[in-house]
Parts: sequence; structure tokens; C-alpha cells
Amino acid sequence: MSIESRDIAHMSHALRLARLGSYTTHPNPRVGCVLVDSDTDSVIATGFHARAGEGHAEVNALAAAGERALGSVAYVTLEPCSHTGRTGPCAKALIAAGVSRVVIAMRDPNPQVAGRGIALLEGGGIAVTVGVLETEARALNPGFLSRMERGRPFVRLKQAMSLDGRTAMASGESQWITGPEARSAVQRLRARSSVVMSGIESVIFDDSRLSVRADQLSLEDHPLGIEALVAHQPLRVVVDSRLRLPLAARILEQTGRTLLVCVADETPALQERRTLLEAAGAEVLALPAGQDGRVDLPALMAYLAEHEQANEVLLETGAVLAGAMLSAGLIDEMQLFMAPTLLGGDARPLLALPGLDNMANQRRLEIREIRAIGRDWRITAIPVASSSAEMADETLDSMREQSADQLKIGDMINE
Amino acid sequence: MSIESRDIAHMSHALRLARLGSYTTHPNPRVGCVLVDSDTDSVIATGFHARAGEGHAEVNALAAAGERALGSVAYVTLEPCSHTGRTGPCAKALIAAGVSRVVIAMRDPNPQVAGRGIALLEGGGIAVTVGVLETEARALNPGFLSRMERGRPFVRLKQAMSLDGRTAMASGESQWITGPEARSAVQRLRARSSVVMSGIESVIFDDSRLSVRADQLSLEDHPLGIEALVAHQPLRVVVDSRLRLPLAARILEQTGRTLLVCVADETPALQERRTLLEAAGAEVLALPAGQDGRVDLPALMAYLAEHEQANEVLLETGAVLAGAMLSAGLIDEMQLFMAPTLLGGDARPLLALPGLDNMANQRRLEIREIRAIGRDWRITAIPVASSSAEMADETLDSMREQSADQLKIGDMINE
Repeated sequence: MSIESRDIAHMSHALRLARLGSYTTHPNPRVGCVLVDSDTDSVIATGFHARAGEGHAEVNALAAAGERALGSVAYVTLEPCSHTGRTGPCAKALIAAGVSRVVIAMRDPNPQVAGRGIALLEGGGIAVTVGVLETEARALNPGFLSRMERGRPFVRLKQAMSLDGRTAMASGESQWITGPEARSAVQRLRARSSVVMSGIESVIFDDSRLSVRADQLSLEDHPLGIEALVAHQPLRVVVDSRLRLPLAARILEQTGRTLLVCVADETPALQERRTLLEAAGAEVLALPAGQDGRVDLPALMAYLAEHEQANEVLLETGAVLAGAMLSAGLIDEMQLFMAPTLLGGDARPLLALPGLDNMANQRRLEIREIRAIGRDWRITAIPVASSSAEMADETLDSMREQSADQLKIGDMINE
Repeated sequence: MSIESRDIAHMSHALRLARLGSYTTHPNPRVGCVLVDSDTDSVIATGFHARAGEGHAEVNALAAAGERALGSVAYVTLEPCSHTGRTGPCAKALIAAGVSRVVIAMRDPNPQVAGRGIALLEGGGIAVTVGVLETEARALNPGFLSRMERGRPFVRLKQAMSLDGRTAMASGESQWITGPEARSAVQRLRARSSVVMSGIESVIFDDSRLSVRADQLSLEDHPLGIEALVAHQPLRVVVDSRLRLPLAARILEQTGRTLLVCVADETPALQERRTLLEAAGAEVLALPAGQDGRVDLPALMAYLAEHEQANEVLLETGAVLAGAMLSAGLIDEMQLFMAPTLLGGDARPLLALPGLDNMANQRRLEIREIRAIGRDWRITAIPVASSSAEMADETLDSMREQSADQLKIGDMINE
């Protein structure tokens, strides 16, 4: 095999390892590393980043290799860090271990540090190759890249609908439109997200929990163990302008944090609700109202990126908030789980898009994939001309493609 | 090769030939025939039925074979006829030609004559095998079989919709939701149908023509020639209870027939409309009103089968008539052309299903196929537990599978 095809094969291996961290690295990126004997081309050791505060991929692989790392080639899906963080700079660790060459899929997306790890390696006399399977590496971390490059999370809208685009009966009744396989897929979407977000109407009507349930993930064979995948629950964010969440709501009984986002308003009534809800375990964030008097959604996204280090946000909500997020250009990907059923024209719509009253204003999408999920079908679609001004289109495209890929762990390991 | 696998290969060939008649045999079934040398297993001659009044598949193949038919094996997709019709009984022609064996995919679906052709052949000393690729042969002729076995046509509902299940803006504006490839696919659906049916609201709003246009079929390479495919326009049926069709409607300017179906009502106003519309070229059928005061849809279907020999009906209409047909159990297949766009919750729904107000009453479907058609997607779905009491489920299933298969002619010939 040529060097190029060997590089691709080993980087592909490193990407598969990185995906093992899909559910646990928040707020860090998913990273994988493979150490290869430069003479025999055989794998010496592997590593991936599992959890913030634990070893980076490179450090884990070096630890597993021990002295065999000397003279080896390291394949890493992301530029090794140059800063002295909780685990020390990985670039220095690679130099210290005597690695002869480092192959990197992509540079650090943080413009303030990009290139420093590479410079450190090259300064240490190591040959460095950058850009092998870069598209795939970017797709691993759509949220982390979005946060670094755009200052907001990657937002994925999930909805369950009938074939005629209905999410619930007129009464609001909506339980079990989709089957168990689709619900497991949604659980995995939650598990990989930093934030699961909804609107107060949906949370009240369904008494939503927005939590990840170990028994519904269908990830029993994950090497980290199922309990590790649910140890850290995603932050639950409820857009609740007037703090109407009932104190007895099930969402407040879940492990992990629930953040209610209201509009800044000093009226005693709202202050009183805030006090009660905080006493019931909720956190409350007051944001200035947007032009429509509701919570300013772009400001909320910026807040979640800056203060919660939110990479991926999963939006599970009704037509009004979903439509508002789409209209604000804040939806990066839609995952629609379509059930083989009809609910009829009186049932609830998928999206409220007020003001859309002629065909010229229709919201165009690009459908990336339609896949059977049990008896249902998952449609992955991308809003066309969304607010992607700050990211190269190609980058967004590859991120979305990959993030659409909800492979189960068995597929990841065996593919 | 074993006899069985040779039989399957030749019958498969005969089925491909039969499909060449997909657009032209109305009201006859599509039938193909292959004559094979029993020693060398090579094809001697082929034939298919192209148009009512012209040669049956067997007669065409025998004519092409001439004296070489002697001792050959004939593969026919449908039991050869025993009656003396316009072209004489095919069973007798096969005997007269000295064919040694006849392989038949399926018996005649008309219970009154089923088996007679086979008996005639066997009486003539010919070995007969029945049932090779029977499922596929039934799927060739969903409409003909439905008419013979249930006394009504096979009804296919076609709708174009957005990803959120909307067919038009609230204003009714709906042009060009889907792209040119989808519109060609719809043209081919019209071309294969005996009847194209719509409701008066749709026809008035869109000034629909409901005609087959040669330049939109994308069937330029069809061996019968594109003009032959549009020579016989499907009967246009408009459900128009009060005869509101404008006299200047474009539908009345098309070649072929337009049948308006109103409720029987002797009021002078309706009679006057009838006279005017008939003078403008329409035909008018008055049917007793159903329980809801509108046209009795099951009665209309029975009429079309009995008096128009309608095999396949393509229903292209709005939410009300589509919902009424579905609720009456008269839809056998849905073909939804889904455009990658969102029209929002104020836009027009796919189906009106009045009275469907809780999840327990949702209309379950089975999705058979989702396929990219240009930039759009076609969803083929089957209502579960529709009025299939008189047909075996398996039969309906296979018919629907095949009828979903809108292969272009190139695919048919090469597959």
C-alpha cells in the first residue's frame, strides 16, 4: 500500500475510536488516536478521549504503548493540544515518547490556538502531515466546531410526525406516534447532545422529562458501559418566558440540571415564580426579550455556547418554537421521524411559519438521507441558506452528514 | 440450468415484454409471450399485447416465429384466452402452431373463464405449467385484476406535498411544489391509468387539464413511439356534485373525454348546467347521493369498472375528496411526491379526515418504498386494512409493489 492509503486506513481507524466518545466527551471534542509501527505498519496501541478531565486520546494511546511508542507514527483526528490543561499538552507528550511522525486529520478549530500544536511538534523534530480525512474529522464534532467557529452550538431539530406532517392530534395527544426503534434513536440523539431544549407548551402538555434513559438507548454493547453514557445528563433547557412550569413537573425530578429561560422582567409575579421554581430545583436565566417580546433566541444560543460550553443542542418541541428557531436561522439540521400513519388536516402542524403566505417564500431544504428506523423513517434535512455565513458551506455539509449518522455502536466498531 | 430456473428466466423476459404495454392496453391486461426452442433453449420469437383490437401477445409471437414455433415452448404471463374475441382464441392458435409446452404465470382472473384456456391446451395434448412468477404477473395488472375480482378499479392516490405535509398555500397557490422529474413521473402515472380523477375544487382552482402530454412523459425511447402512448387519453372524471365546472375550463379543450359526475337532482338549475356543459363537450353522469349528500363514491367506482372498463384510476385532488376516498376504503395505494421544502402550518393539508380526533383512530399505512425522484422523493404507501376483503392480501401486496414500480422504459428493457 502507498503511504497515502495507509494513512487513510489508520486515520479511519482513529475516527472510529473517536466516535466511541460520542456520548461522553462534553464539552470536549471527540478525538481518537492510533500508534503504528513505522516498519511493519502494524498497530501498536490505540486511544480515544472518553470524558472531560480524563486522558486525551494521544495520552491514552501513549500510555498503552509504553516504550513501544518510540519511533512510531501517531494518527490523531484533531491537532494535539499545546496548552497545559488537566492532562498536560499532548504535543509535548508525543515528543517525549519519541514518536517519529504525526498525522493529523484537522487543525484545532479554535482560531486562537490553531497551529500551535503542529508548531510544537515540528519544533521537536517530528514530521507532521495535516489534512488526512479532514472532512470526516470535522463531521465528528459539528457542535464543538460550531461553538469555536461561530460562537453558537450546532442545533438539531428533532420531530416525530405522521406522513401528512402532523405531530399530535388537535387536542395535543401525541404519545407513541413513532415506534420503539425511533424512540431509541431519539434517546441517542439526546445522549450525544450537550443540551436538550424544548418550549414550555410542549413540556407542560407532555410533562416531558427530556432525560436520557439507559434502558432505551439500545447501546448495551458500548465499551464504556451503558451507565457511563447516562452518568452526565444533558442540560435541559426550557424556553418559558413567563415561568409557567408547574412546580410538580416531572422534568424537575430528573437527575442533572434544568434551566428555565424567561424574559427579563422585574414584576413581583415573575419574581415570585422564580423563587418557587428555584426552590423546586430549577435554574432560571432571564434574557432580554427579542423584538417579538419573547425570549431572544440568538442570544440564548450565544449564552449556551459561552456559559454552558454547549456543543450540540437537540431541539424537541412544538410548531411555534420550532418555527421560530427555523425563522431565526438557528436550525442546522432537521431529523424528522416519520411514522406510517395519517392524522388528518385537523391535527397539529409540524412548524408554524407565520407570514409564509406565498410559494415564493417557502423554506427550501436539502434532504440528505431517508432511512428506515424500525417501522418508521428518518428524514435528515438541512435548511438551505441558513445562517452559515461564518462557516464554509463544505464544512457545514460534512458536519451534517456525519452527525446524521447515528450508527449504533456495533456498526461503529465493525464498519 | 434446471428446468425451473430456465422457466423463471424466460418468464421474466415475458414479463418485461408485457410491461411495454403498460401505457396502451386499456382496457385489456398487459401480457407478454416468449417462444423458446425446446432443444437449444434459445429464444425463437417474442410478442406482447400493445393495444386493444390488435394482436394478443401469443398471436404476435407466433406470427413472428412462423414455422419455427413447431415444437417450441411458449411462456405467457397470463392464461391464454379461450374465447373467440377480436383476434381468435390464443389457446387454439398455440395448438395449431404445434407448440409442445406452455408455461403460464397466472390463471385468468375472470372467475367465469379461469382455467378454460388451460383445459383447451391440455385437451390439445400440450404440457402446461402454471404459476411461474405468478406474484410478479399479478403485479403487472393491478387494475385489471381488481376489476375482475372486486368489480372496482385499483385506485392510486397521487399527491405532491412539502416535507411538512402541505399541498398548497392557504390561498390555494400550489404550482411547482415538485420538480420536473416528479412531474414526469406523474405524467407516466396518468398515461398508465384508465381514468384520471379529481374533485371540482381542484379543477377550478388550478384549471387542471388532467391530460397526458407527450413532451413530459420522458419516454422518448419507448419502442411503441411516444405518439402511440398519448393517442388514447385516459378518461377524465371530475366529481362535481353541483356541476360548477366553468364552461371555459381548459379540461374541456383537451382531446379525449371528460366525465362530470353530479348528484341526481331534477332541479332546473342543475339541468340547465348539464345542458350547457354537454354542449361544451363534457359528458355528465348523475349518481344518487351518498349518505353525506355528495356523490356516492363506491357507486362511482363500480360504475367506472362496469361501464368504462376502468382498470387503474389515478386520483389527483385536494384534501377533501382524497380524505373521503380514503375514509371510504377506496384507496389502494398512495404515491406522495415530497418536495424538500416547508410551507408551514397555515398551508393546505394533505388529507381532510373529519372525525379523526384521537390517536386511536389514526389511519395506519405501510410504507413500501421511498425513492429519490430528481430533487424530490416519492413515498409509496398502502392503507392498512383497506377494503381488501375480496382479494387475498398477498395478491394486493404484490400488485401494489409492482405498480409502484414506475420504471422508465430503458430500465424495463435492460433490467
